[in-house]
Amino acid sequence: MKKVANKNTGVEPPVLTTTPFPASRKIYIEGTHKGVRVPMREIALTASSSNGSDSKQKTFLVYDTSGPYTDPEVQIDIRKGLPSVRSSWLFDRGDVDVLDDFTSEFSRQRAPGHGLNGKRFPHSMRKVLRAKPGRNVSQMHYARKGMITPEMEYVAIRETQARDLAAANGDSDNRLWSQHPGNSWGAGIPSVITPEFVREEVARGRAIIPTNINHAEVEPMIIGRNFLVKINANIGNSAVSSSIEEEVEKMIWSTHWGADTVMDLSTGENIHETREWIIRNSPVPIGTVPIYQALEKVNGKPEELTWEIFRDTLIEQAEQGVDYFTIHAGVLLRYVPMTANRVTGIVSRGGSILAKWCLSHHQENFLYTHFEDICQIMEAYNISFSLGDGLRPGSIADANDEAQFAELKTLGELTEIAWQHDVQVMIEGPGHVPMHLIKVNMEKELKECFEAPFYTLGPLTTDVAPGYDHVTSAIGAAMIGWFGCAMLCYVTPKEHLGLPDKKDVKDGVITYKIAAHAADLAKGHPGAQARDNALSQARFEFRWKDQFNLSLDPETAQAFHDETLPAEGAKVAHFCSMCGPHFCSMQITQEVRDYALQKGLDEQMALEMGMKEKAEEFRESAKVR
Amino acid sequence: MKKVANKNTGVEPPVLTTTPFPASRKIYIEGTHKGVRVPMREIALTASSSNGSDSKQKTFLVYDTSGPYTDPEVQIDIRKGLPSVRSSWLFDRGDVDVLDDFTSEFSRQRAPGHGLNGKRFPHSMRKVLRAKPGRNVSQMHYARKGMITPEMEYVAIRETQARDLAAANGDSDNRLWSQHPGNSWGAGIPSVITPEFVREEVARGRAIIPTNINHAEVEPMIIGRNFLVKINANIGNSAVSSSIEEEVEKMIWSTHWGADTVMDLSTGENIHETREWIIRNSPVPIGTVPIYQALEKVNGKPEELTWEIFRDTLIEQAEQGVDYFTIHAGVLLRYVPMTANRVTGIVSRGGSILAKWCLSHHQENFLYTHFEDICQIMEAYNISFSLGDGLRPGSIADANDEAQFAELKTLGELTEIAWQHDVQVMIEGPGHVPMHLIKVNMEKELKECFEAPFYTLGPLTTDVAPGYDHVTSAIGAAMIGWFGCAMLCYVTPKEHLGLPDKKDVKDGVITYKIAAHAADLAKGHPGAQARDNALSQARFEFRWKDQFNLSLDPETAQAFHDETLPAEGAKVAHFCSMCGPHFCSMQITQEVRDYALQKGLDEQMALEMGMKEKAEEFRESAKVR
Repeated sequence: MKKVANKNTGVEPPVLTTTPFPASRKIYIEGTHKGVRVPMREIALTASSSNGSDSKQKTFLVYDTSGPYTDPEVQIDIRKGLPSVRSSWLFDRGDVDVLDDFTSEFSRQRAPGHGLNGKRFPHSMRKVLRAKPGRNVSQMHYARKGMITPEMEYVAIRETQARDLAAANGDSDNRLWSQHPGNSWGAGIPSVITPEFVREEVARGRAIIPTNINHAEVEPMIIGRNFLVKINANIGNSAVSSSIEEEVEKMIWSTHWGADTVMDLSTGENIHETREWIIRNSPVPIGTVPIYQALEKVNGKPEELTWEIFRDTLIEQAEQGVDYFTIHAGVLLRYVPMTANRVTGIVSRGGSILAKWCLSHHQENFLYTHFEDICQIMEAYNISFSLGDGLRPGSIADANDEAQFAELKTLGELTEIAWQHDVQVMIEGPGHVPMHLIKVNMEKELKECFEAPFYTLGPLTTDVAPGYDHVTSAIGAAMIGWFGCAMLCYVTPKEHLGLPDKKDVKDGVITYKIAAHAADLAKGHPGAQARDNALSQARFEFRWKDQFNLSLDPETAQAFHDETLPAEGAKVAHFCSMCGPHFCSMQITQEVRDYALQKGLDEQMALEMGMKEKAEEFRESAKVR
Repeated sequence: MKKVANKNTGVEPPVLTTTPFPASRKIYIEGTHKGVRVPMREIALTASSSNGSDSKQKTFLVYDTSGPYTDPEVQIDIRKGLPSVRSSWLFDRGDVDVLDDFTSEFSRQRAPGHGLNGKRFPHSMRKVLRAKPGRNVSQMHYARKGMITPEMEYVAIRETQARDLAAANGDSDNRLWSQHPGNSWGAGIPSVITPEFVREEVARGRAIIPTNINHAEVEPMIIGRNFLVKINANIGNSAVSSSIEEEVEKMIWSTHWGADTVMDLSTGENIHETREWIIRNSPVPIGTVPIYQALEKVNGKPEELTWEIFRDTLIEQAEQGVDYFTIHAGVLLRYVPMTANRVTGIVSRGGSILAKWCLSHHQENFLYTHFEDICQIMEAYNISFSLGDGLRPGSIADANDEAQFAELKTLGELTEIAWQHDVQVMIEGPGHVPMHLIKVNMEKELKECFEAPFYTLGPLTTDVAPGYDHVTSAIGAAMIGWFGCAMLCYVTPKEHLGLPDKKDVKDGVITYKIAAHAADLAKGHPGAQARDNALSQARFEFRWKDQFNLSLDPETAQAFHDETLPAEGAKVAHFCSMCGPHFCSMQITQEVRDYALQKGLDEQMALEMGMKEKAEEFRESAKVR
């Protein structure tokens, strides 16, 4: 943790999470495109022949979402924001204009000189970009033109998790990289992720790279069924509590533990300024639900929302650099009555805002009627749609009902329209669903939304455990990830009860990393099992430090170990607290191996001496009864 | 919490968990057999027409594992143990003898007068029972003779969760009891659990009622695919830490939160005395792994184990009242070399003890060669087998390998032998298994072990999250429970790292209650969804207290709520901390209902006036587009 002094702005100095993981260092893998340097975390292992380890592995590389914060070489100053790694790529394509001023009316009102000192992100030198007139800057557009962008190469390197590099270094221990074949339910995961494969997947809409041209700080990542399963963490102040600084640190904190994207769901004051702080300091894509802010602008009265206010909000956020927008354009007027007999009605905040608007005006949802207008904004900044499931079920009873699936069908129609604009799309999904009804959600989504990436909230597999909904939902999340869901929106232990604090955010993130990784394993994602293999090998060889360091949360693993056996010596001891020092099941294995070897040698010797019967006898000797 | 003074024995007075759940009272439902009084927890709800609730439900009944501890009418004195609810049933059957002394050599050595004052359970008036010569006292034996025992009626009442009673009281709100049909993968769950159905299931070996005749304190429960999914909690002192009193309170604590059975895995000193304390105070069946204690008797040297020592240990524990024994009789000599190339070898403690014994003597596992002898002990006390999976995989890499499935096949053979003795059997299962390999575990078990109940440890779906293995395993546990697993052995956050404390035990139990309940929902177990419905209805109607009280852990739910909104008024407020007081998605629903109603009325009126076209017009008016 570093304290960052911040005297000029009067903003209370936040404590930032910048501690690297134990025994870890940041490395960068360079691509062929200029400036493509893909961060990875290299974990140093204690394995060596001298300590009797079977493993030749000296280091292990893992996917790293924590950004420059865990790189001691990078000086962090949240008042300046992160370095803009993508700037040159954006300008090299020659299709963007630098604007003199914000396009959004609201943004202009909030510009410097209008008060708000101390609340506003102080670094005002950033230039706002927009596609040149008539140009389309979406990654899907480039992909369809056959271009492999630096972003595509970046994610290709990132997704391989340096398996190729390990092979080249001679670190390619067969035992480490062997794994179960998996069952991907018809996904098309290749053994090597090439930049060309990334391009193809983006071109056909089966994956998205959410990277607003105004978020040059982002480290590109990809969301799609044929890639590693991703997770999203939600943060956001609200009418009830929390501050700007807390939100920035929550973003850093959640990416530290593994969030691949972060949604800023702020609903309170100074949303605009909070968002600027977050985006300027975020190494991961940021998503928002623009209708939340639009609602603030009409003092919380849904019926007063207008297309003009909403449009200005979209542009305001587009020019700040939001990477994806949740748009509830599938909440159609005729679907609203379908929710009347539900146990929990409409539980999506966005969904209910639009349902209320539709009912008040007795008109069709303006996000639906203006959908092409929205696409035109999206394509000018490379913003991705996250088509919102405003009618998702809020209870087990309401799962998979008419309203939910009617909306899903409409989201499919909208996907086709967005794709006509080369705008990237993912589809939001539920919610609360019992286990046996999860698979049909994935199947319907793939069919009706043409394999656009699915992005679900859980789903929670029971309603009976408020306080533990990270768990009730991790069960559903792991399953739907296995079935093909591309990104899992986390749920914290505070779901349904209160606002998550840092501990809750961490619990939610780690729980969802587990779900996503379990899904990767079950799909047979190439290389996914290597980390399990490395950790289990370390566990079996009593390399305690390696076991901790290879885990998703080394701090907790070590702390839990030390609660029972605090002595430093116990971290090299060949026993654990379960069986104690006098007997250890794992020690037996060496004897088993000696026995199997001896039995094999006996057999072999007998065979070589032509004594086939003798060999049989040795073989049978193990089958006494 | 109650402090129980305990001056006479010098045992440090343990703090016992005897606080009833909030807004809950213990009720008993009587059966037709004398003394059948089945405990349930009745939760009082605040729902009423005056607060605008849709629900007519005043109370909600839940399955209750917490025993007399949560009944304020029962005076608890752990030095006397729990009341013996089953004594008359045992004697009425006329097939048991009261012994003058323990049969086990070891038990006699530990009897009063041989030191150990203060460690020994002080209530020595208990009579030891054993089947009369030539008689068989197993529930399976009775079932096969066509007898419906009081135990069978007891579990039938317990499993229905008083749905019938609710119907009789007019509490049978259709909305509350409606649920998704579920997919039970071919299980045969009836809509009503009758005593005769219980008998049939026990007779054919598809369910067991683990109730040693020397554990008269137990409240009978059933483990089988066509019943509610159960969970087990492990406790036990070890060579490294903990005391007798802590273990008793751990048992009380785990049943308080929902453990259906408890395994005492003690490996340290005074195992015999610890077990006596636990059994005398346990309302749930107690399981053990007798080989652990046998190993203590030979100073931790597996090669010195003999059938005679083991046999005496079985009888010692049988006469204390252990309800089920884990017996690793499937670890055959010829299977041991199959583990030689595993990443994590043999990880089962019992499995490795027996592997070591087999290798040292180059003889077949004596549990296998003496299996019929063991059956004869089991039938004399109604002890159930939990046939141990000594070769279960300890890592994702080793899942579903040759060794594991070879042993499973042998467990099937042993099941048939046990059933020839009318001895009840369940089968233990893994372990570490990626999601896509879980289902085949269940299928193989059903086929090769003839539908004997499966009892799995998790399985853990990834190895990468030590510190969170309650979660990695809850994913697998929920899935295998859905597929047909009858009981889930919990895993705590300390798994692989250290010994669980009370918080870990609670986290493990609640996490597994979630997995078991999610499985019940997915199987479509009759009535399972009622609690979800009741809770979601309370949530939707902002009946905060009801939401907390209906949850698996009311304390945590309320504490989490109060962290954000501590004021007492917030517990009746019609908003939550997510959206704040000015806008609430749930409030929209009333408007939706009014709209849907009005639309329906308009349609109806038009129809009545014979104006079919007008009705169409109204219907279409909702589809503005």
